[in-house]
Amino acid sequence: MKIQKEYGITAKKDENLSDWYSQVLLKTDLIDYGPSKGFIVLKPYGYSIWEAIKQIIDTRLKDSGHQNAYLPTVIPEALLRKEEEHFSGFNSEVFWITKAGDNSLQEKLALRPTSEAIAYSLFSNWVGSYKDLPLKLNFWNSAMRAEIKSTKPFIRNSEFLWQEGHTVHTNNEEAEAEVRFILDLYEMILADYLGIPVLKGFKSRKEKFVGAVATTTLEGIMPDGKAIQLATSHNLGQNFSVPFEIKFLGSDNREHFAWQTSWGVSWRLIGASIMIHGDDRGLVLPPKIAPIQVVLVPIYKRGQTDQNVIPSSVEFASELRRAGIRVHLDIRDEFTAGWKYNDWEKKGVPLRINIGPKEILKGELEVVRRDTLQKETILQNSLVERVTELLDLVHNNLLNKADQALRRRITHASNYDQLKEMIQDQVGFVSAGWCGDEDCEISIKEETGADIRLIPFERNNKSDSTTRCVYCGKNTESIPVFARAY
Amino acid sequence: MKIQKEYGITAKKDENLSDWYSQVLLKTDLIDYGPSKGFIVLKPYGYSIWEAIKQIIDTRLKDSGHQNAYLPTVIPEALLRKEEEHFSGFNSEVFWITKAGDNSLQEKLALRPTSEAIAYSLFSNWVGSYKDLPLKLNFWNSAMRAEIKSTKPFIRNSEFLWQEGHTVHTNNEEAEAEVRFILDLYEMILADYLGIPVLKGFKSRKEKFVGAVATTTLEGIMPDGKAIQLATSHNLGQNFSVPFEIKFLGSDNREHFAWQTSWGVSWRLIGASIMIHGDDRGLVLPPKIAPIQVVLVPIYKRGQTDQNVIPSSVEFASELRRAGIRVHLDIRDEFTAGWKYNDWEKKGVPLRINIGPKEILKGELEVVRRDTLQKETILQNSLVERVTELLDLVHNNLLNKADQALRRRITHASNYDQLKEMIQDQVGFVSAGWCGDEDCEISIKEETGADIRLIPFERNNKSDSTTRCVYCGKNTESIPVFARAY
Repeated sequence: MKIQKEYGITAKKDENLSDWYSQVLLKTDLIDYGPSKGFIVLKPYGYSIWEAIKQIIDTRLKDSGHQNAYLPTVIPEALLRKEEEHFSGFNSEVFWITKAGDNSLQEKLALRPTSEAIAYSLFSNWVGSYKDLPLKLNFWNSAMRAEIKSTKPFIRNSEFLWQEGHTVHTNNEEAEAEVRFILDLYEMILADYLGIPVLKGFKSRKEKFVGAVATTTLEGIMPDGKAIQLATSHNLGQNFSVPFEIKFLGSDNREHFAWQTSWGVSWRLIGASIMIHGDDRGLVLPPKIAPIQVVLVPIYKRGQTDQNVIPSSVEFASELRRAGIRVHLDIRDEFTAGWKYNDWEKKGVPLRINIGPKEILKGELEVVRRDTLQKETILQNSLVERVTELLDLVHNNLLNKADQALRRRITHASNYDQLKEMIQDQVGFVSAGWCGDEDCEISIKEETGADIRLIPFERNNKSDSTTRCVYCGKNTESIPVFARAY
Repeated sequence: MKIQKEYGITAKKDENLSDWYSQVLLKTDLIDYGPSKGFIVLKPYGYSIWEAIKQIIDTRLKDSGHQNAYLPTVIPEALLRKEEEHFSGFNSEVFWITKAGDNSLQEKLALRPTSEAIAYSLFSNWVGSYKDLPLKLNFWNSAMRAEIKSTKPFIRNSEFLWQEGHTVHTNNEEAEAEVRFILDLYEMILADYLGIPVLKGFKSRKEKFVGAVATTTLEGIMPDGKAIQLATSHNLGQNFSVPFEIKFLGSDNREHFAWQTSWGVSWRLIGASIMIHGDDRGLVLPPKIAPIQVVLVPIYKRGQTDQNVIPSSVEFASELRRAGIRVHLDIRDEFTAGWKYNDWEKKGVPLRINIGPKEILKGELEVVRRDTLQKETILQNSLVERVTELLDLVHNNLLNKADQALRRRITHASNYDQLKEMIQDQVGFVSAGWCGDEDCEISIKEETGADIRLIPFERNNKSDSTTRCVYCGKNTESIPVFARAY
């Protein structure tokens, strides 16, 4: 692809995260902006990351008995209106199709903001008996929600790629177990594949998914102290099965309304991973989602390739590829080795191997880690073994650093002044007592910009003493985590 | 999923193909109808077939240097209008978004009918020098074209899943080579994976893709004698690069407009495969795209499972699975073995293995082929080997049968009366002389219902003698193939 005039990343991540982020996305050929506001284009390098994430999630979902299927992109207005709270929550951001060619449609069609309405209208025909349950389906598609305010690639777009899971159960306990199973699965994938640590818990009533009984969430923290919702898993109870008439004949020979869950993650994971791990040189990709895990750069002066550098490089690349490692051999003639080093550092490839005549003679190779920029000399005959170890070390280092950053950004506020100050100082996650009243929650949001990101599943240790709502002073047991968020 | 009341396929394929087709789709849990006209839902069994096809094509495209990427679903009206012939061709079937929430949009947004317009508006920024070329991109997505007339699942829908490839080259020869490479790739995949033989050639000027210089096509034939377009690969020449300003600096240091191709196949391949291979019992799936290639049915009377039938079946299933074969072990307790036989025959699983106490004792297994319904006793210790062979035999048999059916449906008409009669008799493909004049083409279409499906790349043998246009009688060298089509 066309080489930009201003080639390197000129913004500093610590000084201007937003500018740094845009530059990284554009200058590493991950994305481009689409012609309509809020829509982005994934270039091959960006889409490969999504393909890697998709593969990881898809395998785990299939292994746990979920099946993929496909739903239409459009939803008739009447269906979307069927669950009122759900509709009112999405109404303002729904794109509407009103015409086909020059003809007006009799009924407006919504572009899928999420598929509950259309999926459940079908489920009512698909489910007849308890023997048909559980029904555990997953859908890979794009969702469209008009974003009129500030948009940010991967983080907030008018169209985003995601997966949405929808399950139907005979009882609430099984639905609840599914909600938690999926949340734990997401947490594992975020940590073990993307190097992203999170906090987990419930959303408040105000912040939960519209139409859900309860929403569980995974929340990450960005380098600017803003929180980001990375995955949600909802217990829908019977809120949808009643209006959509999803009923089953139980083993008791009586009809019952089913119990449901829905859950999803989006390409937002890519955005979070970039913001968390990247540095002033550009991307730092976690090895397991990196389109290229190892890049080989042969070093030679023009006209001096007689030292067997290229043929050996091809051999090393093949050896790594046979071991299942994603390798790229950079044999572009028009660039110097030094230029290539910068290029692959910018593109965040976890390991770079430099291969020159000296290394060939000695039976050695030079490996450079992207995360630490440390060089290491390895033996050619332990290539696959050491590269595999190093990829793991890179992953673990990224996860550990992100985990330390997360820990540093969790504090506790004993009173409202403290809370306000901490939020003002962009500390990150601030836990504080809250009476459970939505009025207090709204006031805190209005006055500080922070909302309740989650209510931890287990009560925080810091709350052994009597706790009061930081806003109204009422006694309470609830200690949610507040933060400003993306 | 819910068991239908009327369980079996009641229509006969030979008597009422259309009814047979709908029943098969619905009663094998491949699809359901969506709530909006022309939109279908893929249930897991149907979507698995698409996943298998996608995997096959995706691997081949990546192996030949194509990269995946993602484009927005919506296209601003002004962009779609940029290539006039293209716009006028799609205009009548474009879905338009005119509102977001309660607000009218300033500019209408089209739902992607195909991505030329949006892709090429981006390519003009991505391509700068001949070093950026060729650019070979592929997109997996859904396209939306309002079908107001008759719709048929997989064959003609208002939304369909497909892949669309878009490439950019420095010269016409390279673009032409790409067009043919892709058409040959599609032909190979159709034959070797879906068991579908085709005719190939050019579309006439009237039938080519709107905006293309030339369209090449693969045309299949259905059991009712109707042709179906299964894949197209277009040489776009510079028809789009000029209005979209896709220019590159050549090695001659001068600016040139680029040369382009686009090509695609859709889930129509699933529909064609079903119509071609299925029989009165239901689906007959080609092994390479079958979600389940082998189903194991343990045979035992209730309470008499002491003969080790189930544990042995689990072992056999594992052995096949380790060999990379897609296996399902049917241990549903509520159904008899006989019921299961019918069920899996209906669902088109290529091989069924019956495992009873007798077989266990003798070290044998009974294998039943879905295509021929022939039974064969095999030795347990040659399970993987024989199953692998049988899957190949099933594939080859399906392809051969389809190929014979295709050959039987190709005839030649020496004059217009013959052509009319043959089309009337639903013979299938009818080759006939044509002067090349669009007026004759249109008249033939109006009077017979048949259009030019393709103009073969190589001139037909039957045309050794002088040939005349069957309509106007002018001498001609061109002998296209006519047919009524889906």
